[in-house]
Amino acid sequence: MSEILADIGEFGLIQRIQELLQEIGVHTPGVTLEIGDDAASFKPRPGYELLITCDCLIEGRHYLPRHIAPMDVGRRAMAVNISDIGAMGGHPLCALVSLGLKSETLVVDVENMYRGFAEELNPFGASIIGGNFTKSENTVFIDITLIGEVRKKNIMLRSAAQAGDAILVTGYPGQAAAGLKLLQNAKANENLRAHPLVQAYNVPTHRAREGQAIARSSKANAMIDTSDGFLADLGHICQESNVGALLIQEKFPISDELKKAAVQLGMDPCQLFLQESDDYELIITCSPEYVSFVRSAVEAVSKTPITEVGKITAAVKEIQLNLPDGTKHQISPLGWDHFKLKGGENV
Amino acid sequence: MSEILADIGEFGLIQRIQELLQEIGVHTPGVTLEIGDDAASFKPRPGYELLITCDCLIEGRHYLPRHIAPMDVGRRAMAVNISDIGAMGGHPLCALVSLGLKSETLVVDVENMYRGFAEELNPFGASIIGGNFTKSENTVFIDITLIGEVRKKNIMLRSAAQAGDAILVTGYPGQAAAGLKLLQNAKANENLRAHPLVQAYNVPTHRAREGQAIARSSKANAMIDTSDGFLADLGHICQESNVGALLIQEKFPISDELKKAAVQLGMDPCQLFLQESDDYELIITCSPEYVSFVRSAVEAVSKTPITEVGKITAAVKEIQLNLPDGTKHQISPLGWDHFKLKGGENV
Repeated sequence: MSEILADIGEFGLIQRIQELLQEIGVHTPGVTLEIGDDAASFKPRPGYELLITCDCLIEGRHYLPRHIAPMDVGRRAMAVNISDIGAMGGHPLCALVSLGLKSETLVVDVENMYRGFAEELNPFGASIIGGNFTKSENTVFIDITLIGEVRKKNIMLRSAAQAGDAILVTGYPGQAAAGLKLLQNAKANENLRAHPLVQAYNVPTHRAREGQAIARSSKANAMIDTSDGFLADLGHICQESNVGALLIQEKFPISDELKKAAVQLGMDPCQLFLQESDDYELIITCSPEYVSFVRSAVEAVSKTPITEVGKITAAVKEIQLNLPDGTKHQISPLGWDHFKLKGGENV
Repeated sequence: MSEILADIGEFGLIQRIQELLQEIGVHTPGVTLEIGDDAASFKPRPGYELLITCDCLIEGRHYLPRHIAPMDVGRRAMAVNISDIGAMGGHPLCALVSLGLKSETLVVDVENMYRGFAEELNPFGASIIGGNFTKSENTVFIDITLIGEVRKKNIMLRSAAQAGDAILVTGYPGQAAAGLKLLQNAKANENLRAHPLVQAYNVPTHRAREGQAIARSSKANAMIDTSDGFLADLGHICQESNVGALLIQEKFPISDELKKAAVQLGMDPCQLFLQESDDYELIITCSPEYVSFVRSAVEAVSKTPITEVGKITAAVKEIQLNLPDGTKHQISPLGWDHFKLKGGENV
């Protein structure tokens, strides 16, 4: 019979995870005390600032357990945090993982979740140094705090965009939104895990290496990840930088997969590109003369496409969308908002 | 009508909390970026190591919403984290707060929770620099990551106890367990919030100042907080230090309030002292010749009583309890274990 958490208890689980991380994890230089005391400790490198972020996934809300393997839940939870560190130009160092789990959760599922965490952290030489297990009978959640480092001169903010900047975006935002829609429309026994858009939703590809390369190039002004959706996060840049934006719809990078899925879903692919979507791409703004430098910086570390989709304007907090037919529309940067009522319905 | 989260949304809540913290919070030196970007940033002080801990409270499991004000929920959640930093000899610096909230949660309740966080952090010059809000319809939770600093030579570990050490404990462990029992036995409309043992449960008094003073004295060997209960945490010291312990029951500090409640509850006060209890006191071990130095170090910063309750032995991982009638018992360091089945029942 498969072991459940009630069989081994909290302290038993801590020991199992410690042993697993010894086996599959890495040792991050500077970490002086890992799991096993009241707190973990580490010695920061001189000359660096520390970046700290936290992000939480709730089962059924941020992932659909029927459609994702436990290891991919782990990868997803860690990738969204790595994305935040990368969007600041930083390098991930160490993580604390706080889990709310049920008594009947399988031990092997928790172990596989940690394999997913390690798969995302190991390439950075980053490790899990602490955390917490709590019994949560109604809601499984994964709350991760990730610490990274960055040289002060390289920190990338959302508040530093300049009127006239080009707006660049990595990858293909909107794919995760389409993947989620496909899952929500799936038939009872349909297995869509291998569908590329479902994979884009389940295990989003953070752009931390690209973010670090852009930061080191010193050629970009503002950067943010698209965790709230392209439009909402461009809106954050406009809000914090006191600028506006002009978007050229025909320049939007829409993957063939997304075009195909949009037809199937009866949706506008450009709408999927703009709206809330769990892609973790980067929006970058830079002076038009530096666009090719930013491209080269990214090309040196990755094959991720970068597309210029518009420019930053002086029209404070206004976002204008130019359609292929020549019409211009003011659009509102509404993004993913967990609590807000929209049309009378909780989203 | 009172505002709920669905009225103002996630971004509205972020703005409200930012404004509130501007008003009631402090600015921690070294923090270079607070709430409002993909990550927060700070510049660590040269010569210090960083301590990181996280602890999570779940409504109904770690606090009973009917019996506690939202501000005290905030104090409780922050105090248990401050306790972990203090038990390492460290000073709290900055916190990330991750909340799982319902759409119908009152905005004022969340604001009062933050007032509670600030009440605990402000005396240390520590502040909230980031976090996350997630909609969680079934379970409200508060997950906090707290970062502190300590000079390397002052780090206090649970793994450094020596055979022959005196075992000291601060305050009156067991009071929180009794307070919780009183709440669990309360009648439908009974309000016990002002009962001192209920207060001990609702808003435990961390011993961070005492922990720092003990660490600076350089006279103690091992230290841990009693978050799992006195016996379980003494067990952690024995396990990690490869030692045993001898406890003298008649020396246990039992407050008059606890004696009275034990009679009312039909329980043994010494059992309440030993078992799982949400007190956040410190267990300290030190060479017998340094007991008075440790006492003096604590007296210089606090009126918290310190009691010598036994000694560390070479009998690896064995804990012996000597009763007033001269009998000796081997006891097992079982503590608070969220998942483990005990007598067939989930606790």
